Amino acid sequence: MYRPALLITRFLKPLSSHRAMSTRTIGFLGFGNMGSHMATNLMKNGYNLMLYDVSEANTARAKQLGATILSSPKEVSQNTDIVITMLPAGKHVYHAYLEKDGLFEGARKDSIFVDCTTCEPTVSRRMADEAAKVSAIYLDSPVSGGVGSARDARLTFMVGGPVNGLDKIRHLLNIMGKNVIHCGDVGMGEAAKICNNMMLGIAMIGTSEAMSLGIALGIDPKKLASVLNVSSGRSWCSDTYNPCPGVIESVPSSNDYKGGFATGLMKKDLALAQNISSELDLSTPLGASSLHIYRLLCKKGYEHKDFSYIFKFLQE
Amino acid sequence: MYRPALLITRFLKPLSSHRAMSTRTIGFLGFGNMGSHMATNLMKNGYNLMLYDVSEANTARAKQLGATILSSPKEVSQNTDIVITMLPAGKHVYHAYLEKDGLFEGARKDSIFVDCTTCEPTVSRRMADEAAKVSAIYLDSPVSGGVGSARDARLTFMVGGPVNGLDKIRHLLNIMGKNVIHCGDVGMGEAAKICNNMMLGIAMIGTSEAMSLGIALGIDPKKLASVLNVSSGRSWCSDTYNPCPGVIESVPSSNDYKGGFATGLMKKDLALAQNISSELDLSTPLGASSLHIYRLLCKKGYEHKDFSYIFKFLQE
Amino acid sequence: MYRPALLITRFLKPLSSHRAMSTRTIGFLGFGNMGSHMATNLMKNGYNLMLYDVSEANTARAKQLGATILSSPKEVSQNTDIVITMLPAGKHVYHAYLEKDGLFEGARKDSIFVDCTTCEPTVSRRMADEAAKVSAIYLDSPVSGGVGSARDARLTFMVGGPVNGLDKIRHLLNIMGKNVIHCGDVGMGEAAKICNNMMLGIAMIGTSEAMSLGIALGIDPKKLASVLNVSSGRSWCSDTYNPCPGVIESVPSSNDYKGGFATGLMKKDLALAQNISSELDLSTPLGASSLHIYRLLCKKGYEHKDFSYIFKFLQE
Amino acid sequence: MYRPALLITRFLKPLSSHRAMSTRTIGFLGFGNMGSHMATNLMKNGYNLMLYDVSEANTARAKQLGATILSSPKEVSQNTDIVITMLPAGKHVYHAYLEKDGLFEGARKDSIFVDCTTCEPTVSRRMADEAAKVSAIYLDSPVSGGVGSARDARLTFMVGGPVNGLDKIRHLLNIMGKNVIHCGDVGMGEAAKICNNMMLGIAMIGTSEAMSLGIALGIDPKKLASVLNVSSGRSWCSDTYNPCPGVIESVPSSNDYKGGFATGLMKKDLALAQNISSELDLSTPLGASSLHIYRLLCKKGYEHKDFSYIFKFLQE
Repeated sequence: MYRPALLITRFLKPLSSHRAMSTRTIGFLGFGNMGSHMATNLMKNGYNLMLYDVSEANTARAKQLGATILSSPKEVSQNTDIVITMLPAGKHVYHAYLEKDGLFEGARKDSIFVDCTTCEPTVSRRMADEAAKVSAIYLDSPVSGGVGSARDARLTFMVGGPVNGLDKIRHLLNIMGKNVIHCGDVGMGEAAKICNNMMLGIAMIGTSEAMSLGIALGIDPKKLASVLNVSSGRSWCSDTYNPCPGVIESVPSSNDYKGGFATGLMKKDLALAQNISSELDLSTPLGASSLHIYRLLCKKGYEHKDFSYIFKFLQE
Repeated sequence: MYRPALLITRFLKPLSSHRAMSTRTIGFLGFGNMGSHMATNLMKNGYNLMLYDVSEANTARAKQLGATILSSPKEVSQNTDIVITMLPAGKHVYHAYLEKDGLFEGARKDSIFVDCTTCEPTVSRRMADEAAKVSAIYLDSPVSGGVGSARDARLTFMVGGPVNGLDKIRHLLNIMGKNVIHCGDVGMGEAAKICNNMMLGIAMIGTSEAMSLGIALGIDPKKLASVLNVSSGRSWCSDTYNPCPGVIESVPSSNDYKGGFATGLMKKDLALAQNISSELDLSTPLGASSLHIYRLLCKKGYEHKDFSYIFKFLQE
Repeated sequence: MYRPALLITRFLKPLSSHRAMSTRTIGFLGFGNMGSHMATNLMKNGYNLMLYDVSEANTARAKQLGATILSSPKEVSQNTDIVITMLPAGKHVYHAYLEKDGLFEGARKDSIFVDCTTCEPTVSRRMADEAAKVSAIYLDSPVSGGVGSARDARLTFMVGGPVNGLDKIRHLLNIMGKNVIHCGDVGMGEAAKICNNMMLGIAMIGTSEAMSLGIALGIDPKKLASVLNVSSGRSWCSDTYNPCPGVIESVPSSNDYKGGFATGLMKKDLALAQNISSELDLSTPLGASSLHIYRLLCKKGYEHKDFSYIFKFLQE
Repeated sequence: MYRPALLITRFLKPLSSHRAMSTRTIGFLGFGNMGSHMATNLMKNGYNLMLYDVSEANTARAKQLGATILSSPKEVSQNTDIVITMLPAGKHVYHAYLEKDGLFEGARKDSIFVDCTTCEPTVSRRMADEAAKVSAIYLDSPVSGGVGSARDARLTFMVGGPVNGLDKIRHLLNIMGKNVIHCGDVGMGEAAKICNNMMLGIAMIGTSEAMSLGIALGIDPKKLASVLNVSSGRSWCSDTYNPCPGVIESVPSSNDYKGGFATGLMKKDLALAQNISSELDLSTPLGASSLHIYRLLCKKGYEHKDFSYIFKFLQE
């Protein structure tokens, strides 16, 4: 479907060196729920993707959409100067980057690895150390926004690592999303993402409870939201993504809770925050309660609903 | 201290009718931590206060500051067309308004009662019914902002009741505060206040947990706050009243947690929200967890610290 | 249905004085889910009940089963020396005892009132004070065991008040139940009941979590229960009322969670414990979390299942 | 201090084969807070310990008490047929058993490894698989009871693995403790321990809340405990280890909360239960809340108090 762009590139630009060609050629690992949309948006914008995915189904879909399928992470890094990875969790990052035939084995000098997986900062720091050994740069760049934002190229990237490295790949993030925030040294992108999403889970449940309480007391939900939004109870959940149907038209709560950021993903992020809390012995009681509330929501079958569904779940 | 205003009023305006005089004369019940500041701000702006308070100490302070002390709520309502009440809880409202020698006993026709006490909407609706029987208007008008905001006249008033009644006393609210929000019928001011403050308690603890987690992960707190504030983790607690010292200079967290909105008052509001939740059988689990966290904070002696102190309490 | 006992009593015993007859005649208020079984067990054992209930349906059922229906609480106390009350909550106790045509209005000198309602100790103490004014004795005597235990006469009574008063009516408690525990002065029966049931709610959820965790880890549930029961994890919930099906045959969990002690009643007791906690400003965080878990269980439609159903609810 | 036993053994028994000698010679890894008491009790009963510990301080103490110090885990397993390990966590078990110069490297055929560390059942199963490869048997045998029970030889062992293996070393467990419970296949000892201790943490907080509530309501604590103990609120925490001072004389609560089972260890077990809950996606909300309550208790400096100290912490 995207072959024409590839053909044009081949005819119009002299194949001077693989470095020149590689500026339109990007490596990509992970054509799943999130990665497929991110990769597709890159291809739509004229980039050639050298792709690897462990799943045959994902690989087939990617091939159909115009990606060049390679047979190992190592092959991907051997053929590109920039590699983007979007994997389920930290252990998958370890596999893809460090194992035999992994990304670092084939890494070119001065190449840049951009990992968009949400995982522990300790993983990011380990990857950065290993990248340095092969003269490459590693940036942790987890995303915020969910599948819908991935599809609509409205993701927020929270990036950790050297700014000069970020500057070299920022144009790619700007294709896949609308916000790029540099958070500090490597690992700090993950740190920011994990903190943000733990806060988000707590705030969404809290806003749902406050809206429910107000409705039960007889106040019009739109009026209540408008009061919260000019008062100390204001949050992104109340003013941009209100969980009560009818308060904001364009958000999942007013559209049967479809799309958005899935309850299952919210739960996953809250579990990660708790694992880190235990590792670092931190007091995060509301984070823990929120995890168990979202876990129960998943167990009751609402894993794929938008995470604002918690408002409805708390009703009778 | 405010006698001059009183004298000038007496000499400059003919004592034509007590109705003309009463436009600068306001009734006031409750010269406590919040009410004393609110009453003082009215007197500073040239209003004469006819005041009643059950406490001798409060009464003495009020008298010293220029208020005229009367001997019962009934006397206050007999001599004024507008009465403001600021009492600790719903049961005090019942006493002051409904008991023998209470406010409604002496109420003038077409007078307006503005209750700033935080209490259940059922109390407000009962008072409004009783007010109608004596041809008076009742508005529930609880405040947000704490003692500091009361002193600095920066309170937010969340008002329930007829708009035409609100319009007649709005000028007084604008002296005591900077925000007046009409929330709906009588009781809806209380409903909005209670929902807002339950959300606030949850959000303050959540923001404290997120900031703590970030700091433990190595991210600079100011950087983390700036990321939250442009992301889905944004809230008034993160962008206007951050609980981590040094993130925002002018808030209690950067001033040894002095002043602001006391932990004891936050706990009181969260308890009210839970009592109502039990009465209406509502699911408010994070509201309940937040109540117990703030109750423990009070038990450990931090009742008078600003409620953002929870950030510090969660650290070692 | 129980008329024969009444007839025999009439023929065999001379109607010497109403005092002699009243030793087999008991007053009873509240022929609801619990009271109906308790009253029935008394009638089965030859007692004549003078009964009052606000509900026509309850009254009809009681009449059909042999009770004599009177038209007010006052009539009941006028005609008996012992009155047992089993009402939904404290406010119903206030109505039945203190209002016009209430129990105390018709109370005979030296009569005994046994209130089996679960309510705040402050209610019990008030009733005891009022009873003293009419030379009567009041005992708070809330029950433990649920509807099944009421039907099978296996209730536990937790009694507060003077022992000599308890001794005069103990025989009646021994008909309706199998355990009578004197807990202290008046109000202490309620105190013990409320504390016991808050512990029970926490322990049932805790035991359910422990059983679930064990099963997920691969341990046989019967084996796990047997280990808990000889270890520090032992509780009544693990050794007498295990929530995992198949561990104990004769309990609701092994019988589709039918009967027993309803989830709705557990929630009610936990809410009472939280209201008192707020009134006395007590730290009961697990009690609060347990209330919200049982409240959610009720909202999802499981109000009438045995409270051990929480085990099943926590599974997928 | 125990050299005499060693000498007597040397003179009285012919050194026929190292197998005969090894029946009184046991390998031991981990002479820490728990292991030091367990090892000491074995030596008091005439056993010779071949010991390894990573800490020099521990090693010195062990040597002084009569143990023979070896220089690696491998040396220990080379010289014994039975090895007991008592390590802080699963990762230490991996190191000691699987790394270079680890226990399995030196393992004799048909030897038995008894790991008393509390860790995930997945660790136990991995160790058992590795043991099988070297023709050895592995039993997971975590303990319950705390440092005091270790010192007084009153531990409870929850054992997983083949019964015939357990039978061969049961006599050693009977020296170090008073209860040996076989829980199932390998890993099931850990499973039982983790479930038991999660229940214990929940029950101790719950019992503390119930006792506090009762005391605030005016009931005598001994009376309340006696009521709970014959009712559905009964638990090991109420009848054997009551957290309220004065209810049971011989427990930590009546002795300034000294000794017993430390708050820090309770927290550690609750964190392990939550990590497993997240791995297996299980609903354990009270377990999570209990973890955070005990974590806060540790942060406030009570890490070394008995875990029943939570009763006192919840008071003012």
